[in-house]
Amino acid sequence: MSRTVVNVKSDVQAVLNELENKNIRNIFFVACGGSSAIMYPAKYVLDREATTLTSDLYSSNEFIHRNPRQLGKESLVILCSMSGTTPETAEAATFAKSKGAYAVALTNEPTSPLAQNADSVIKYEWGNDVDAFETNLGVLYQLVFGVLSVVENNGKFAKAVSSLENLQSVYEKALQYEKENARKYAEANKEEPVIYTMASGANYGAAYSFSICILMEMQWIHSHAIHAGEYFHGPFEIIDENVPFMILLGLDETRPLEERALSFSKRYGKKLTVLDAKEYDLSGIDEEMKGYIAPLILNRVLRQYAEELAEARNHPLSKRRYMWKVEY
Amino acid sequence: MSRTVVNVKSDVQAVLNELENKNIRNIFFVACGGSSAIMYPAKYVLDREATTLTSDLYSSNEFIHRNPRQLGKESLVILCSMSGTTPETAEAATFAKSKGAYAVALTNEPTSPLAQNADSVIKYEWGNDVDAFETNLGVLYQLVFGVLSVVENNGKFAKAVSSLENLQSVYEKALQYEKENARKYAEANKEEPVIYTMASGANYGAAYSFSICILMEMQWIHSHAIHAGEYFHGPFEIIDENVPFMILLGLDETRPLEERALSFSKRYGKKLTVLDAKEYDLSGIDEEMKGYIAPLILNRVLRQYAEELAEARNHPLSKRRYMWKVEY
Repeated sequence: MSRTVVNVKSDVQAVLNELENKNIRNIFFVACGGSSAIMYPAKYVLDREATTLTSDLYSSNEFIHRNPRQLGKESLVILCSMSGTTPETAEAATFAKSKGAYAVALTNEPTSPLAQNADSVIKYEWGNDVDAFETNLGVLYQLVFGVLSVVENNGKFAKAVSSLENLQSVYEKALQYEKENARKYAEANKEEPVIYTMASGANYGAAYSFSICILMEMQWIHSHAIHAGEYFHGPFEIIDENVPFMILLGLDETRPLEERALSFSKRYGKKLTVLDAKEYDLSGIDEEMKGYIAPLILNRVLRQYAEELAEARNHPLSKRRYMWKVEY
Repeated sequence: MSRTVVNVKSDVQAVLNELENKNIRNIFFVACGGSSAIMYPAKYVLDREATTLTSDLYSSNEFIHRNPRQLGKESLVILCSMSGTTPETAEAATFAKSKGAYAVALTNEPTSPLAQNADSVIKYEWGNDVDAFETNLGVLYQLVFGVLSVVENNGKFAKAVSSLENLQSVYEKALQYEKENARKYAEANKEEPVIYTMASGANYGAAYSFSICILMEMQWIHSHAIHAGEYFHGPFEIIDENVPFMILLGLDETRPLEERALSFSKRYGKKLTVLDAKEYDLSGIDEEMKGYIAPLILNRVLRQYAEELAEARNHPLSKRRYMWKVEY
């Protein structure tokens, strides 16, 4: 078995060692907002790869109140909060443990409430200067492919980890490639009151995150992440020459959905921005991993677009009117 | 066992009889747009009730391309399309069967492509004059509670069906109760360029449907269905006195999420419309069923709001610029 020599973060390895002695049957991805959005590609990986493990993804408070009947001793609950202070997520860890589940916290703050409430803690780093391997998305993939290896002998663990090790240089080249595009995007969209995003498959979470965290939260711009497959069954009636769309093209099996949505949008829309992972230099990413890794790259590039948009609008990404400022 | 005497539609019973001889381990809910939205409460029921059955919900083309690894001989795939001509959904039935799954089609057209591609067909009725028991939502619940009964001996089948039998009169009273409110809503919102919806739990699908099918598709109004638990982790920064919200309050276990979202919205928003299932006369609905049934009532009431909005805006619900008119 390759799994013992795969070089993951030591706190990820510690969790995998614990799992050797457990009988895990289902996985719950539990977080809020941007921390929840990073879990969408992990759910995609599980759907594509897992032969017996089942999985669900819920916003933390939905998870607690929905109280899924199959949450129990055979459950792995993966939670995430950068500060570890998100109340619902910290409470969800306690709730999961009360059901006998094994709760693993991903956080930047290993002494936070979330970390204290969980069974195990995996620390990740945060910020533009951090290596991709150490970020929330990088750490989550180490864990998820590790779990697939430990529980199901899935053979892609080493490929996933080596791809993650090479990801930072892919980010840097993609950011360079998109630098001028991001600036132009910001200039063209700075007065827009509504901006839609669209994607499918592993990439939907990146679109969702850009819509709710960047546009709605940090820029107060109306938005909605449209699923590219759902587009033709309602949402597409909204597009015309005046409605801006940010369309993501990934590299996974659902790419035809994104391509079809783009193709239609080009016929009736004019304000389209396309991020296409196919245009990026993916050297060092294993061929079998490209579909899974694309949303991480798109997500990183979207951050660059967000920074340029904030600059062009003179509305810093840190600006809030309610979050952390009023009671809620 | 009560299940043999529960009086469901005969085509539902025929499917349940088939399932007696199968070993179903997982359920996939597969449809597009409004037909997908009706499946969200069914997923909620399964999460709350199922001891072994697992479930996932995907837009039809996402389902085909995602190609979940656990789709196979132990899968029940429930598909829905009113006309039965939705190409992706008809194709999804063929795809499901090719994997050995048992494909059940819900449709208004028993000779449609979807019906022909599926293993079994359940017909439902459509329109404002049809009894609730015979609609897509009514039929789907008959099937889902029936499956829980057959596969897991879940004891709520009879209660679910008797509640569905009494649902039409609940609809009629709720529609009467909301009649003037719907008219006022339409008058107040007829000039709005953006209207958000919000809900959680079993009710999220009704919010999603109102956003993408009614507002975006049929009224060309910008919209987004915000999950009430996610609200505080991004989207709530968008609200102010000028941004209209339609907030649903159901009766399921996640109601505290919806109440919290409403309470915050009342402090910073002014253009709020609230549909609260607690205000309706639910005579004939079993106490244990109220949380599950609430989204059906809210959905029916939302249709009334949609009709009033279309009238006030002089933009008929049947008006389209792309759907069924251009190639896509």
